[in-house]
Amino acid sequence: MGAAGAALGTDPSAKVTLVTSFQDAAYSPCGIPYVHGREISDFDKLFMATKQHYVDQGLDIRYETTATALDTGAKTVTLDTGEVLGYDSLVLATGFEYASLGVPGADNPSGLYYVKNIREAMEWDKVLDTARSAVVVEGGPLGTEMVTALAHRGIETHLVDSAAWAMSMATDPDIIKPVEDAWREMGVHLHYSTKLEAILRDSDGRLRGVATSDGEIAADLAVVATHKVANTALAKAAGIKLGMSGGIIVDAGMRTSAPDVFACGDVVEIPHGVSNVPIQGLSGSHAYAQGKVAGVRAAGGVRDYRPVYVPWGMVAGKSMLGGVSFSETLATALGIDYVAGVATGISRARYYPDVKPVTVKLLADPKSLRLIGAQLVGGEGIKERADFLAMCVRKGITVEDLATMENVYSPAIGALNEPIALAAQQTLANIAKARS
Amino acid sequence: MGAAGAALGTDPSAKVTLVTSFQDAAYSPCGIPYVHGREISDFDKLFMATKQHYVDQGLDIRYETTATALDTGAKTVTLDTGEVLGYDSLVLATGFEYASLGVPGADNPSGLYYVKNIREAMEWDKVLDTARSAVVVEGGPLGTEMVTALAHRGIETHLVDSAAWAMSMATDPDIIKPVEDAWREMGVHLHYSTKLEAILRDSDGRLRGVATSDGEIAADLAVVATHKVANTALAKAAGIKLGMSGGIIVDAGMRTSAPDVFACGDVVEIPHGVSNVPIQGLSGSHAYAQGKVAGVRAAGGVRDYRPVYVPWGMVAGKSMLGGVSFSETLATALGIDYVAGVATGISRARYYPDVKPVTVKLLADPKSLRLIGAQLVGGEGIKERADFLAMCVRKGITVEDLATMENVYSPAIGALNEPIALAAQQTLANIAKARS
Repeated sequence: MGAAGAALGTDPSAKVTLVTSFQDAAYSPCGIPYVHGREISDFDKLFMATKQHYVDQGLDIRYETTATALDTGAKTVTLDTGEVLGYDSLVLATGFEYASLGVPGADNPSGLYYVKNIREAMEWDKVLDTARSAVVVEGGPLGTEMVTALAHRGIETHLVDSAAWAMSMATDPDIIKPVEDAWREMGVHLHYSTKLEAILRDSDGRLRGVATSDGEIAADLAVVATHKVANTALAKAAGIKLGMSGGIIVDAGMRTSAPDVFACGDVVEIPHGVSNVPIQGLSGSHAYAQGKVAGVRAAGGVRDYRPVYVPWGMVAGKSMLGGVSFSETLATALGIDYVAGVATGISRARYYPDVKPVTVKLLADPKSLRLIGAQLVGGEGIKERADFLAMCVRKGITVEDLATMENVYSPAIGALNEPIALAAQQTLANIAKARS
Repeated sequence: MGAAGAALGTDPSAKVTLVTSFQDAAYSPCGIPYVHGREISDFDKLFMATKQHYVDQGLDIRYETTATALDTGAKTVTLDTGEVLGYDSLVLATGFEYASLGVPGADNPSGLYYVKNIREAMEWDKVLDTARSAVVVEGGPLGTEMVTALAHRGIETHLVDSAAWAMSMATDPDIIKPVEDAWREMGVHLHYSTKLEAILRDSDGRLRGVATSDGEIAADLAVVATHKVANTALAKAAGIKLGMSGGIIVDAGMRTSAPDVFACGDVVEIPHGVSNVPIQGLSGSHAYAQGKVAGVRAAGGVRDYRPVYVPWGMVAGKSMLGGVSFSETLATALGIDYVAGVATGISRARYYPDVKPVTVKLLADPKSLRLIGAQLVGGEGIKERADFLAMCVRKGITVEDLATMENVYSPAIGALNEPIALAAQQTLANIAKARS
């Protein structure tokens, strides 16, 4: 939808056709866990506009339709309706699939909840009304949101993760700890370093639990929150080049290896700004920004996308959790040298109502002192600080700069000492200690 | 207190003596308006530690004592007790006085509330219990907080300001408008472009109101929130050099023109990082950071302060209000060339409970596109964004950088489109329009 809107904005005379296998367009799938968690009252709120709105806008949307073949030479797309659409420019936004569970019992989709389609989410929400227990498989971003949502809804929730802590690809154990503490308070069972071995079913084929390396867990459903795999079937069959992360390779203009074929969102890979490693499966704001570039380019305009530094954040447990680029764990795994510092500050004056802790961990390059990563957990202002720190990583801002940053101090909205500055000062102190 | 703590931290063997005319040390005067507004329940919460704590820390605090003379040659300070203290290093943190009202009836302090001393604030809080109406003189930061607090407390509140809108030194009319709208909803009477002409008193000398160029206003008290004037009497008499803003001139080490005499806080002036103009009367976080530099230096350590970009923020009306460096009004007044862009975004997903508007206005240098100022008004995340944008001004980050910034998108904590990015994109669009 972002690409379509940008294409029309660039060339209002363009004829834009969208093909989607879903019954709907332009809703916010990101809101689904929060409806399940009862923070948002209604699925209807997630829709951005009526179908008529898009008709009025001049978009030709083919709902419940799948593109089955792409011929980049003839410049045609074949639909499952049999229709063959010609194109001047094509944007591939085929997204992702959850990585296969690959265990016995997983072929039967019954009882397995793959969070994506809003219509299915509406059906699952009814199931949750009577479910007593649920397993969430993998504690990545969606898994973390779903564990929080299900526990908030009062369902006995089990997280099964082969890693030793949740969000292990982006956080360190000390940062996730307040989230885990809150989860335990909320009654969540954390099965870490635990391998899923089978989906267990009764004689009718209904899911009755899961088998794991930590034993059997009885459950009424399992949320499959495995990592995102780029849905490249159409592109691959058409001979479009894929990269080492499995995503479609694109240049700054979101151009693929095929002429006049662009791609965006979870189906592509984008170089990381610090490591230059291509990464795939970013956030909705990344997908949307990429879509706008692809749409502008598809309509003949000029717009570029940039390497990413990936600020991220969410509500997890009773905290907000966030970060930018590398954790200590990831930096170590990638062999990236770093120095780190961590500090806990507060979000408002210490005497102001609803003051919350804010913990910041910073990673810097030991030579240049440039920021290369951040993690945050706390009660307020996590998203805004993650955005700030992502720009700092991008622009080569150092922990010395951050240690001397100015900050707003006003009792209701900010504390005397900014937690980012405290963490930067701690990083410098750790460097000094290491040198002495 | 910041300087004293930093001095002891640098040299634990140092003998540190503090002289204060107040009965107390180390409370947060910034919290006073919020106790009056009943957001904070109790003045006791504003104290940071007991007097015994400072005794235990090894600080010799002389309460209710005034330094009456300074001899920078003999290196002595004379106290009003008659005692003469010698020093190796001296830190002047004599703060500010509110600019004199300079109108008839203002010589009598009765009924005039100068917000500063917590003991006096406690007495005034009792007066507010029965006060029906109050005048606030000048709509700077304190005036804005006090108008909000008094209105929140249900007192009929009048703001008298010679400027055409509140916070006129830092905001433009479009940015302050939501604050003014909320004030009007709360029953506040705004007397803009209005000169205070006299404090009106009854035959007993009790304040009964004020006379203004807009007519008489009946009131039970007047809050004097005029601008801060550096309290330099002691320094000036000792021949220490003052600057064009009236504050003590200091170098990066907070050294004054006198040997081994340092100064910090509202009594000094600091160069603005963009314009290089010396400015005085910054925030508590600035004062505290300067105090730490002065204290470290006074104890023989090395620490520097930097030119300032002045992120600021507060709760005003029913919004948070903030900014960095220049508004359009101030840039125009100073003859600084700029391009601007303004946009209103939202603080969370549009469908998430308690989503709030966030308006951002950015000013950039038209040639380099570097950010030179920002203003923000909205419901969430104003302080964190102001801190971010202050670092952007300091580091020469451009509106092109900000237009392509990555942002966290997660329904409960951040929207798809970051308001800062929207404002930067609008600034670029305005530049393109001006060039075409």
